[in-house]
Amino acid sequence: MQITFSPIGTIHTPFSNLDGMPIQPSGAKDAEGTIILEPQYGEGLQDIDGFSHIILLYHFHLSKGYRLVVKPFMDTVKRGLFSTRAPRRPNPIGLSIVRLVRIDGLALHVQGVDMVNGTPLLDIKPWVPEFDVRENARAGWLDEKQQDSRSMKSDCRFAEDEQKG
Amino acid sequence: MQITFSPIGTIHTPFSNLDGMPIQPSGAKDAEGTIILEPQYGEGLQDIDGFSHIILLYHFHLSKGYRLVVKPFMDTVKRGLFSTRAPRRPNPIGLSIVRLVRIDGLALHVQGVDMVNGTPLLDIKPWVPEFDVRENARAGWLDEKQQDSRSMKSDCRFAEDEQKG
Repeated sequence: MQITFSPIGTIHTPFSNLDGMPIQPSGAKDAEGTIILEPQYGEGLQDIDGFSHIILLYHFHLSKGYRLVVKPFMDTVKRGLFSTRAPRRPNPIGLSIVRLVRIDGLALHVQGVDMVNGTPLLDIKPWVPEFDVRENARAGWLDEKQQDSRSMKSDCRFAEDEQKG
Repeated sequence: MQITFSPIGTIHTPFSNLDGMPIQPSGAKDAEGTIILEPQYGEGLQDIDGFSHIILLYHFHLSKGYRLVVKPFMDTVKRGLFSTRAPRRPNPIGLSIVRLVRIDGLALHVQGVDMVNGTPLLDIKPWVPEFDVRENARAGWLDEKQQDSRSMKSDCRFAEDEQKG
């Protein structure tokens, strides 16, 4: 079964390639980006200005292929793909929570972007603590590494021509 | 531009139809479900047992069409689609955070499911507080309604044949 989606807009960021890009919004709190929505979806932006944070779902469009066991940016040993946020996945859908700074027509100015410039946007959802936060969570191998994500940058390991995973 | 995905598994839940289904995991803390991963992806489950919560991205497969301004389950006035978590969206991708209870081979037993039985799974990501939690968030029109989500149930408004949005 195949499921087909089309981008609803484009995410513009300061990161023209994967090298040196933050690996998560927690490492990119100040990185500003702009989402330009396709005009036919503009009406759907009503009421979103009341939310301080939004969830972006997007296509990891530079990601080609995948391996099921990968060495993630934040570790030195291989991990099962679904225990990582690596971009090369069977369905390469990215998820980032960014701060919504302001809206000008079809442009959403956001802070905390961690995706490459020109990334195709698939969906915007409001980030709602009641729905999206869990208490007392364990984060497996990432528990010891979470602090590192603030300073760690991407490299080429998940780029199209690299298979270092 | 079209982007094509294929399900990596199926989410089995107690909810055989939309009527009476919880609208968010926060209203379904005890609802147990089972994810059955397609065999070719099994190796990717390594290390995921260390995480107490996982993010499920899935296809709202019963969702047909959309309106850009909708009356959400939790409100009596119409809201811009992208400020809601309504299933009928330009790209009908669902996002839920569920508790991972245990893994048996290709079966992930989870708690807090809020999707209909047979939902096609697109991706599993680890839920990581450092990446996925923001402090001092404002949740717009939902700020006053978040408590309601624990008791509110779905109805038919977003079903295939209904256009009540």
